[in-house]
Amino acid sequence: MTQSQQLKQHPLIKNGWFKEVNEEHFPGQGFALQVEEVLHTSRSQFQDILVFKSVSYGVVLVLDGIIQCTERDEFAYQEMIAHVPLYLHNEPKRVLVVGGGDGGVIREVVKHQCVERATLVEIDKTVIELSKKYLPEMSVAFHHNKVEVVLCDGFQYLQEMAVKQEDQKYDVIITDSSDPDGPAEAFFQEGYFQLLRGALKDNGILIAQASENVWLDLKYLTQLVHTAKTVFPNTKYCYTMVPTYTSGQLGLIVCSKDESLDLTVPTRQPTPEEQDQIRYYNSSIHSAAFVLPTWANKLINK
Amino acid sequence: MTQSQQLKQHPLIKNGWFKEVNEEHFPGQGFALQVEEVLHTSRSQFQDILVFKSVSYGVVLVLDGIIQCTERDEFAYQEMIAHVPLYLHNEPKRVLVVGGGDGGVIREVVKHQCVERATLVEIDKTVIELSKKYLPEMSVAFHHNKVEVVLCDGFQYLQEMAVKQEDQKYDVIITDSSDPDGPAEAFFQEGYFQLLRGALKDNGILIAQASENVWLDLKYLTQLVHTAKTVFPNTKYCYTMVPTYTSGQLGLIVCSKDESLDLTVPTRQPTPEEQDQIRYYNSSIHSAAFVLPTWANKLINK
Repeated sequence: MTQSQQLKQHPLIKNGWFKEVNEEHFPGQGFALQVEEVLHTSRSQFQDILVFKSVSYGVVLVLDGIIQCTERDEFAYQEMIAHVPLYLHNEPKRVLVVGGGDGGVIREVVKHQCVERATLVEIDKTVIELSKKYLPEMSVAFHHNKVEVVLCDGFQYLQEMAVKQEDQKYDVIITDSSDPDGPAEAFFQEGYFQLLRGALKDNGILIAQASENVWLDLKYLTQLVHTAKTVFPNTKYCYTMVPTYTSGQLGLIVCSKDESLDLTVPTRQPTPEEQDQIRYYNSSIHSAAFVLPTWANKLINK
Repeated sequence: MTQSQQLKQHPLIKNGWFKEVNEEHFPGQGFALQVEEVLHTSRSQFQDILVFKSVSYGVVLVLDGIIQCTERDEFAYQEMIAHVPLYLHNEPKRVLVVGGGDGGVIREVVKHQCVERATLVEIDKTVIELSKKYLPEMSVAFHHNKVEVVLCDGFQYLQEMAVKQEDQKYDVIITDSSDPDGPAEAFFQEGYFQLLRGALKDNGILIAQASENVWLDLKYLTQLVHTAKTVFPNTKYCYTMVPTYTSGQLGLIVCSKDESLDLTVPTRQPTPEEQDQIRYYNSSIHSAAFVLPTWANKLINK
């Protein structure tokens, strides 16, 4: 073992395995990945950061002990949170991504030819820097000519948007926050959905990662969907399947100001050129992602 | 700690956690459940058996180190493997379950009023006995008057079926085997599908658990679907989402001798009485379960 490897240790890695456990949100269960090499550990102004190369999932980014992405399965998350709202909009030009400092979502956004401007608002510049260094396939769009990066708090940015003209607002907003325990806690409250509404054009589409799924805290998830509905009456829950997220799936909340829009059916189809660059999303899985098992459907869609 | 608790140990439980790892099938990743109490450990004639009460998933049955079911999420598997083929058949009367000694599948089968006879063929009577003792909600149907239990090798049973008259054959056959490393190895070969074809009525439906999903060995899974297709040209892959199975999902292979039948659309709807007893399955999720992400669809449905 070299000296640099000896120096890079992290309390969640023991006997060569990283173990994700969370007594509050998913007590009694854990997911583990075998570590080939620890690439980076630090504590930024906002959160604990760990980057390691795993034995079978490529490079892994962990924030505050929770897996954010792995190179092997990240496309399942990035594509669904980006393409579900983008293909619901008939011509998205201005897109805002709140969070998502690893760059994966913005990479998907600029695959849409019609997008003119994609703005990423990230509070923690360390995440962006580490992604550029260790996750080249995720951070590939940071230098794209349509992409603008703003380093600030998402709340503050949205508050400033509220007083802007309609043409300065967004066609699609994607909330790619981390989980509600860290700096992202306020992203799961009614006030946040109000701010998002203020920054969204009248025919705009919003999607927010729910940090939950039907197998975990279904009561909390149902409440979160209800919270979104008080602000956007046209709100639906869907999900994407990602093996390294807890329970193998993650919920997404989709909202529109337009109550007549059926969120389960895409408005546009991927062009052949776009579909060639997409590995997970297609029009059929867009609709299937809204179909829930009976017991969860009864609660969430009651 | 009492003496009996001290005696009940298992090599896969360390520091109060059971960890599922498998270097051959899913190297470098592991799933862990916190153990409240070990209820049973033994080695039957066929496999290593572990039953424990977990902190957050109820009672867990583990065969040869692989989680077979937990009380909290077992319905997602039992319902999909039973109701997908049963609602594809317009009037299933004779149903065969190969494996499934925990009783969960047969419990779902007898929810269908039209079923007259449900036969369970299980090689390991220890699994049945342990389920009756520790998994009362799964083993509830063993004493149902439509249920018949045959203790023998599934292969031998199917070989004897091949020479029977058409009216002695089955409307629906469900292969609820364990994974291909243990006693179930031969359940994943062409010869097995040939035997199943011989035991199935001309308008019968077959479903087999694939012991895989799109995130693991997609090449092997594609080959398995291809193997089934050589025997049943009308074969489709679908899946169910179960958080305690590897990657949070498990593949199922559905086959029919009738090439004109669309396997993705149920032939019957659950009656209101049936739907009241079903927590996961519904007609919409039947169809959604066949929709695959683009990259997997290209391989499996090519």
